[in-house]
Amino acid sequence: MGTTDRIKGVLAPVVTPFKADLSPDPERLLRHCRWLLSQGCDGLAVFGTNSEANSMSVEERLTMLDALVDSGIDPAVLMPGAGCCALSDSVRMAAHVAKLGCAGALMLPPFYYKGVSDDGLYRNFAEIIERVGDSNLRIYLYHIPPVAQVGITLGLIERLVKDYEGVVAGVKDSSGDWNNTKAMLDAGFPQFDVFAGNELILLENMRHGGVGCITATGNVNPAPIHQLYVSWQSPEADAMQEAVSDLRKAVAQFPMIPALKTIVAHFNGDPVWRNLRPPLDPLSDQQAAALIAELEARGFAMTALAA
Amino acid sequence: MGTTDRIKGVLAPVVTPFKADLSPDPERLLRHCRWLLSQGCDGLAVFGTNSEANSMSVEERLTMLDALVDSGIDPAVLMPGAGCCALSDSVRMAAHVAKLGCAGALMLPPFYYKGVSDDGLYRNFAEIIERVGDSNLRIYLYHIPPVAQVGITLGLIERLVKDYEGVVAGVKDSSGDWNNTKAMLDAGFPQFDVFAGNELILLENMRHGGVGCITATGNVNPAPIHQLYVSWQSPEADAMQEAVSDLRKAVAQFPMIPALKTIVAHFNGDPVWRNLRPPLDPLSDQQAAALIAELEARGFAMTALAA
Repeated sequence: MGTTDRIKGVLAPVVTPFKADLSPDPERLLRHCRWLLSQGCDGLAVFGTNSEANSMSVEERLTMLDALVDSGIDPAVLMPGAGCCALSDSVRMAAHVAKLGCAGALMLPPFYYKGVSDDGLYRNFAEIIERVGDSNLRIYLYHIPPVAQVGITLGLIERLVKDYEGVVAGVKDSSGDWNNTKAMLDAGFPQFDVFAGNELILLENMRHGGVGCITATGNVNPAPIHQLYVSWQSPEADAMQEAVSDLRKAVAQFPMIPALKTIVAHFNGDPVWRNLRPPLDPLSDQQAAALIAELEARGFAMTALAA
Repeated sequence: MGTTDRIKGVLAPVVTPFKADLSPDPERLLRHCRWLLSQGCDGLAVFGTNSEANSMSVEERLTMLDALVDSGIDPAVLMPGAGCCALSDSVRMAAHVAKLGCAGALMLPPFYYKGVSDDGLYRNFAEIIERVGDSNLRIYLYHIPPVAQVGITLGLIERLVKDYEGVVAGVKDSSGDWNNTKAMLDAGFPQFDVFAGNELILLENMRHGGVGCITATGNVNPAPIHQLYVSWQSPEADAMQEAVSDLRKAVAQFPMIPALKTIVAHFNGDPVWRNLRPPLDPLSDQQAAALIAELEARGFAMTALAA
């Protein structure tokens, strides 16, 4: 089911830094992206859920994306989020992503209306593909029902892959349900790559034909997760899985996005990183201290971002 | 709790016409708006849930809004939807709405992240108000948990009204729960107007101090609903309520947005009105026929829009 010329491995849904006035900060984003790549991240899923992408306008996202590429980040490692509620926004984002030559576009379904049909979702993705009309476009469907509420069913994938084989190139499954990920793998869709939505099931995903994971904690713990990815067939893989899972669980005791930003801020001595756009709240000082203590108890030390 | 210089009465969340290529159709929108006002609508809540607003870009919404005002629709009857997931989008929409002198801005909470705190939602609305910084701005909070999932609590309203009295001017309660609407009324927030989310509880809302309703079916049945609004203290009010509720229930047997568009299309002999943007589906021909039959059985005949 997989392919060889596609992006694979460990992708971080890159957290987005905001200045004190809550405007996006392209310099800090670039620095974090470079650090992630230096630590072994195979790709950067900028503008995902953990990036607060939906808290930014399309304009702001495109400006940040252009800044990254202009600064030398290889589009071939980028899988920007491009799925919006509005068809016109999704088309604009996906067209730009394809034009830049990015590895793929990670596409949320339109998520305002609930209880929509697979017919309606099919039409959404088909319209996007037809309107973009760029052979560079690779769509990765983004299934995250706990947040978007609107999900991506196996039946929908089947229809899309049938009509747009090679364009509908894979999925990120953030259902949190291994049985669902396994069903996506077992379906054996042609030219279709399955990314786990976090590293807790990275090893299982690889053992069943998946191609990696796109994981929040890839923002702070990329090297060990990447090491597990490349070593999944080694005798040490289970022990490595246990170690990365333990760190993930320590972080996941706290609200994920502010927790990630707290970690990046702390280990870089750069409190600006703690800023979030509403409606998200930062961790309290007490939560932040508890989180850092959990990490230090595990000997975790995020190498500071290169100055 | 109410005020005298504010918009009140029956507002239609105006359905948005799309051409065959799914682009918004300003001419048909204008015609429908004029018809609604001619039938007694007290206001137009363009870009609400029933308008498929979130299926349009901010650009598309602002262009349509400008076209309406440029064509002579009085901004004083407009309460455009202006609440987006992205703070920057909400600020842009609300600033434009205030600058045009619209009666108010109907503000969804940011609805992508779920389980967010009242602190986070407070910061969202406070940032919008501070950044817009226009004394013309009147915010109407939009509580529609069945769709947005993220709701507006009484505690949040209390905090906002305390700090922004007169600016946070009211609420549309589309919870579908009269007890919730009643609690909003009973709270007696200063300078705060409560609109029912549909006409089923219009009479109850008026009897408890509310100021009207913003209702989907205002798109097709505005005159009788407006008549109930102005006659709520008359002896005939209960019978009038029964009649408008009966029609509402007939329509609500079908998915609301395609049903409204089917009705407008049918009674105007203009099938373009049936177009919807994905992810919404049109009614099947069978459903459409059943809906029209239900209406005709009730002697319903929507006066055709002026040519």
